[in-house]
Amino acid sequence: MQFQLSDELVQKIELLIEQKDDKELLLHLEEIHPADIAEILTEIDLEEATYIVKLLDSETTSEALMELEEDVRERILDNLSSKEIAEELEEMDSDDAADIISELSEERQQKVISHIQDEEHAENIVELLRYDEDSAGGLMAKEMVKVNENWSVTGCMTEMRAQAENVTRVHSIYVVDDKNKLKGRLSLKDLLTAPSKANISDVYIPKVDYVNVHTPAEEVARVMQKYDLEAIPVVDEMNRLVGRITIDDIVDFIKDEAEKDYQMAAGISEDVEADDSIWKLTRARLPWLILALFGGFISVSVLGTFGAAMKNHAALFFFVPLIAAMAGNVGVQSSAIVLQGLANKSLKGSLFKRLLKEITLSLFNGVVLAIILAIGGTFLLGFDMIFGLTIGISLISVILIASLIGTFVPITLDRMGIDPAMATGPFITTSNDICGILIYFTIAKLMLGF
Amino acid sequence: MQFQLSDELVQKIELLIEQKDDKELLLHLEEIHPADIAEILTEIDLEEATYIVKLLDSETTSEALMELEEDVRERILDNLSSKEIAEELEEMDSDDAADIISELSEERQQKVISHIQDEEHAENIVELLRYDEDSAGGLMAKEMVKVNENWSVTGCMTEMRAQAENVTRVHSIYVVDDKNKLKGRLSLKDLLTAPSKANISDVYIPKVDYVNVHTPAEEVARVMQKYDLEAIPVVDEMNRLVGRITIDDIVDFIKDEAEKDYQMAAGISEDVEADDSIWKLTRARLPWLILALFGGFISVSVLGTFGAAMKNHAALFFFVPLIAAMAGNVGVQSSAIVLQGLANKSLKGSLFKRLLKEITLSLFNGVVLAIILAIGGTFLLGFDMIFGLTIGISLISVILIASLIGTFVPITLDRMGIDPAMATGPFITTSNDICGILIYFTIAKLMLGF
Repeated sequence: MQFQLSDELVQKIELLIEQKDDKELLLHLEEIHPADIAEILTEIDLEEATYIVKLLDSETTSEALMELEEDVRERILDNLSSKEIAEELEEMDSDDAADIISELSEERQQKVISHIQDEEHAENIVELLRYDEDSAGGLMAKEMVKVNENWSVTGCMTEMRAQAENVTRVHSIYVVDDKNKLKGRLSLKDLLTAPSKANISDVYIPKVDYVNVHTPAEEVARVMQKYDLEAIPVVDEMNRLVGRITIDDIVDFIKDEAEKDYQMAAGISEDVEADDSIWKLTRARLPWLILALFGGFISVSVLGTFGAAMKNHAALFFFVPLIAAMAGNVGVQSSAIVLQGLANKSLKGSLFKRLLKEITLSLFNGVVLAIILAIGGTFLLGFDMIFGLTIGISLISVILIASLIGTFVPITLDRMGIDPAMATGPFITTSNDICGILIYFTIAKLMLGF
Repeated sequence: MQFQLSDELVQKIELLIEQKDDKELLLHLEEIHPADIAEILTEIDLEEATYIVKLLDSETTSEALMELEEDVRERILDNLSSKEIAEELEEMDSDDAADIISELSEERQQKVISHIQDEEHAENIVELLRYDEDSAGGLMAKEMVKVNENWSVTGCMTEMRAQAENVTRVHSIYVVDDKNKLKGRLSLKDLLTAPSKANISDVYIPKVDYVNVHTPAEEVARVMQKYDLEAIPVVDEMNRLVGRITIDDIVDFIKDEAEKDYQMAAGISEDVEADDSIWKLTRARLPWLILALFGGFISVSVLGTFGAAMKNHAALFFFVPLIAAMAGNVGVQSSAIVLQGLANKSLKGSLFKRLLKEITLSLFNGVVLAIILAIGGTFLLGFDMIFGLTIGISLISVILIASLIGTFVPITLDRMGIDPAMATGPFITTSNDICGILIYFTIAKLMLGF
């Protein structure tokens, strides 16, 4: 059943476009799902892509446009007139239409909106554009099925059939009062099984989870996941029902968030993809590298102050990358676990207890690693006793401090209201590098005396 | 509207348990969502949690048990009899019941299953236990609404109401033939608007996305996301409809996968959480540290072979952590971007083109960083010209090689069928440390001649 984009298909389509064989082209494309058409649009030239978008009906292309990467979509929309874009938006749910229109220049936005025939749809889009994109208002769609508590079940069925035309999938039916205030919900199942003479107020479920237009998207995602909701109604400041958020928008949000955290940990500060431009990739990567470079300067200075040790204890310097690497790895491990705990809200107990646990854990790991190092060092590198002891004790201390920094920093940032994901990756590794080297040479100085 | 677990509530509940005031306790708990009851169960003692599970009706507790962390659930289930566990499973969907039963010992599994009253439910659970947990079969539930293509719309409505009793949410109605082979689907909306005298075969949609019981969970998640499906039917080898997967199970899967990738990148090889035992955390973290330690040994040896340079070019050694850190950071950046491209299947074009892009990018970044280094070095550290050139050229070369390793290794592992996430984190940083130091000293040796 699965669609597989093949070179043959792409070539065939390109040939048909060249021959302007619209009939054959439509025959090939009509069986393909819009999400797969989006894949094709990404593969072919911009002119060819525009040709296809203009050829196909907007029902198909509007869905395909939604599935495209933003930069590909942007280039295709640039080739369309405001009227053509408006036709695409006409077919979309209000939330998708608002997302796409927000990518256009303000001037273009106005022109496109003025071409939208369905006035209510245009109003909805304009309303949605007002909300922050990372809030419930920015995620919600205006399309939903809502009924008045005073209606009868039969009247409701009739009204609902009409409303359902505009709604792709009916998750819940929301019940409001005369002032449009959210009173409760009703499932299609409940409606089907209710006696037809009953009033909605007799059969609806008054307990309903909802969010406010200003609830942050993260919180919406957490609530929907926790309570296994497939849709959640959104109310305004006066508790009036203004929209609903469906789980598919949340899936995209969760995935984007996970990718962002992962990229942040890897020292990438913007949401980039492998196919983005070199300039965009540089902007995301270079700042972290510059940070690491300045960290490197500090470690150069630290090492310089211990330069005198080089005469009698040259081997100390050979161990610098080993010590730094261990500090970096341990710090990243600790911070990653803390960070996920913070994101899941599963991090319980006090900071003190958490640090105590990290101390136990890293002491244990540190001792195991020091023993391996001692055995390896004696056999492979011919340590003398005091030198081996110096390296071993340093290793344990560095691991201990690195894990404490890795635990302490994200928790503290989080309490200060700063995104703790900033703390992982380059920032932790760089500061742990410096601390690790400092601890290492201080211990060596005490033990070896130079 | 949001539930917030407070210390007061926990204390209140603990007090009521102590006083065995069941009536008051039920009064407090009946208004709380099962997902929130799970939070309470995690906070209180095991004995108290068991008390509550036994007190509440299984409809509530079965949901709460589903929401618990595996280790908490395990301990509570240990305190319940096989019969009591069976009562909980009775209330769950077959997929959830199978997930929970799979956590028990084989002996216990048999006992619990023998206590399940609903024979069909027991059979369904036994069937689901057979599938690999990371396949469509392992994710699917047996509960769904299915109708025969030969039925009339009216007959179908009657039958459907009966089936819907067992199904929490009706996503789609699946249409099968007399041999239970999947023919198509029907939405509730379609059914509502169909003329009541029509046959199902006249109104159903024959185009339906489906997966096979053996389809890997990852592929199921990809298909459901791509085509924005909220549920997908699962067929067996003979195309017979055997179950369906809903989006909420996929949300959990996507989140777990993202966390796993992130942890892997941070050098954590098991799915652990901050609250896991020290032993479990050690098992997840120590192996990577040992790997990094052996990498460290190699870097010690490499540095040792260049020991002679210490006499005239001591400052070279001060720059080792800077060079190693830059190599590590760049490698992690490159591999993270490639890895996400591989996971999204958005990585297009040949390996050669990809490497060429990385070369351009890292040359550009390398030159910028080398200039900063040269300026910083001259003013802060008083470089002489040839030394500055050595460090600068080394930095550019190291960044170049590190980004190529970060790009090449995950792509190659992926082509060999190995999980490329293995390549990020400690593995990439360790090998880039070693390569970086080797390149650095080789260039220094050529330029400074020692």
